[in-house]
Amino acid sequence: MSRHIIAVDWGTTRFRAYLVDPNGSVVEKREAERGVLTVAPGEFGTALHDEIGSWRRAHPELPIVASGMVGSRQGWVEAPYVSCPAGLADLTAGVTMIEDNRVGPVAVVPGLTCRDSDGVPDVMRGEETQIIGGAAALGAGTQVFVLPGTHCKWAIVRDGIVETFTTYMTGELFAILRHHSILGRLMSGSRSDETAFARGVAAGTVRKAAGLLHQLFSARTLGLFDELPTRSLESYLSGLLIGTEIANATTAIGELLNSVTLVSGAGVGAPYAEALRQSGIGVTQMGDEATVRGLSRIADHLARSNS
Amino acid sequence: MSRHIIAVDWGTTRFRAYLVDPNGSVVEKREAERGVLTVAPGEFGTALHDEIGSWRRAHPELPIVASGMVGSRQGWVEAPYVSCPAGLADLTAGVTMIEDNRVGPVAVVPGLTCRDSDGVPDVMRGEETQIIGGAAALGAGTQVFVLPGTHCKWAIVRDGIVETFTTYMTGELFAILRHHSILGRLMSGSRSDETAFARGVAAGTVRKAAGLLHQLFSARTLGLFDELPTRSLESYLSGLLIGTEIANATTAIGELLNSVTLVSGAGVGAPYAEALRQSGIGVTQMGDEATVRGLSRIADHLARSNS
Repeated sequence: MSRHIIAVDWGTTRFRAYLVDPNGSVVEKREAERGVLTVAPGEFGTALHDEIGSWRRAHPELPIVASGMVGSRQGWVEAPYVSCPAGLADLTAGVTMIEDNRVGPVAVVPGLTCRDSDGVPDVMRGEETQIIGGAAALGAGTQVFVLPGTHCKWAIVRDGIVETFTTYMTGELFAILRHHSILGRLMSGSRSDETAFARGVAAGTVRKAAGLLHQLFSARTLGLFDELPTRSLESYLSGLLIGTEIANATTAIGELLNSVTLVSGAGVGAPYAEALRQSGIGVTQMGDEATVRGLSRIADHLARSNS
Repeated sequence: MSRHIIAVDWGTTRFRAYLVDPNGSVVEKREAERGVLTVAPGEFGTALHDEIGSWRRAHPELPIVASGMVGSRQGWVEAPYVSCPAGLADLTAGVTMIEDNRVGPVAVVPGLTCRDSDGVPDVMRGEETQIIGGAAALGAGTQVFVLPGTHCKWAIVRDGIVETFTTYMTGELFAILRHHSILGRLMSGSRSDETAFARGVAAGTVRKAAGLLHQLFSARTLGLFDELPTRSLESYLSGLLIGTEIANATTAIGELLNSVTLVSGAGVGAPYAEALRQSGIGVTQMGDEATVRGLSRIADHLARSNS
């Protein structure tokens, strides 16, 4: 990388921007509760200018590269999904350029799509940039990336190419079961209970014939029968869902899965790290730096493609 | 049965009462949106008197037998769960008697409990009465009963004895995914689409390694990629969940499962009947009459035990 860039991670609920120096180090960071859902159509340029206008004025030639839901149909511009297998060159080729009056050119990174074993489409948007960044840090070889969140993504990467990935709706299912189902009604408090969490993970990991639709009910009956205190049911349910996800991913991915790279903030990452280790899977953790690195690599590749 | 009885099916959201003649025929029926959740503690006797007081006045000696959530901790009186295996005699022995000023003695039928293959408790309340009634209609032998609803129950019955059962949270999961998840946001309209439903059943029945947490996401991506019209996504999701339940139950129950007795009203029963037939499982349907027959049998057995 030969110059500064502005790296923008613009998701559904959150806006993050980084001023990155030629060594890839973050010089300044802006963070705002200004996700794509809060920005009216036509107001994306203004919103971006509000956040990073001062950087732009100081460095008029700075390239801006943005990833996340900003490139979705509900975002600034739709950057169509690129099909797997795909790597840095494919993502760069799929970039959609915006020419904005105020902030100048903005490169919007596309999401990725693949087909599962049933031929059903799967999608990610934002995570591809984190994976490309993370894979650069790890170098050649085959890696499994896990990116927890509302919809957790498991991706298989070979020599920097995302071969395929799978979405699990674990985070969202936990949230709606907690807040809208009969399971939540019995739960008191939300202090985390490591033992109950581990019990949930174990129950989810040992897949029984009756499956998740049945096992979920245990987060009620164990409380009804005083076999788990009601204050521990939330941790148990979280463990049960994450354990089920790990069991499914293990089966789907097979022998590759003795270690994974977990990319996430500490909040949502911690229970995944715990559950993965409990399941005998090695874990390397990465945070924000994967996003910044991914956006920097795309900016760099774009500059070289255009020169 | 040697006399009239009053059979009461008193669930979470609905109250139903039947005046039953000595032949087991329903002479009169009362139905009200007066579920257990709408009745204040201490007001159950008054509520019941409001609904069936006229029958009681006409026949002062009429036994009243009630099943459902009325016997739960949130109901009139807690009738503790009876453990499986259990049949008519066990349920009758587990009845809790209430002596009410206005309506006189009321026999409250207990629910059933069992342990699944993980040793985790499972429960039903109300369905045991339907099963006991249904089993009497079918006679000796081994039967599988399916009772759809918010929480669907699959029970194995041998010669009138409920050996074990399994709860699936399918109905509730469908409702919260439809109304509170990202899947619902893409759905337009709710007209039922038989083809999309059948496609969901097929997807759920062929269990893939990635499991339900992944497969649920197809109810979004098939819409995003225009591979299903958004108006058909709701039917698809319903089929996917019911298909998954059937696949799980089939695996859990094994060779017994070439035909089942489906006990339910027409609304929730119809998609189950369709999905079961699509999965090659024979279906016998029963409705209200199973409840009335179950309550009548318990009343009869009580009378004989007390005489």
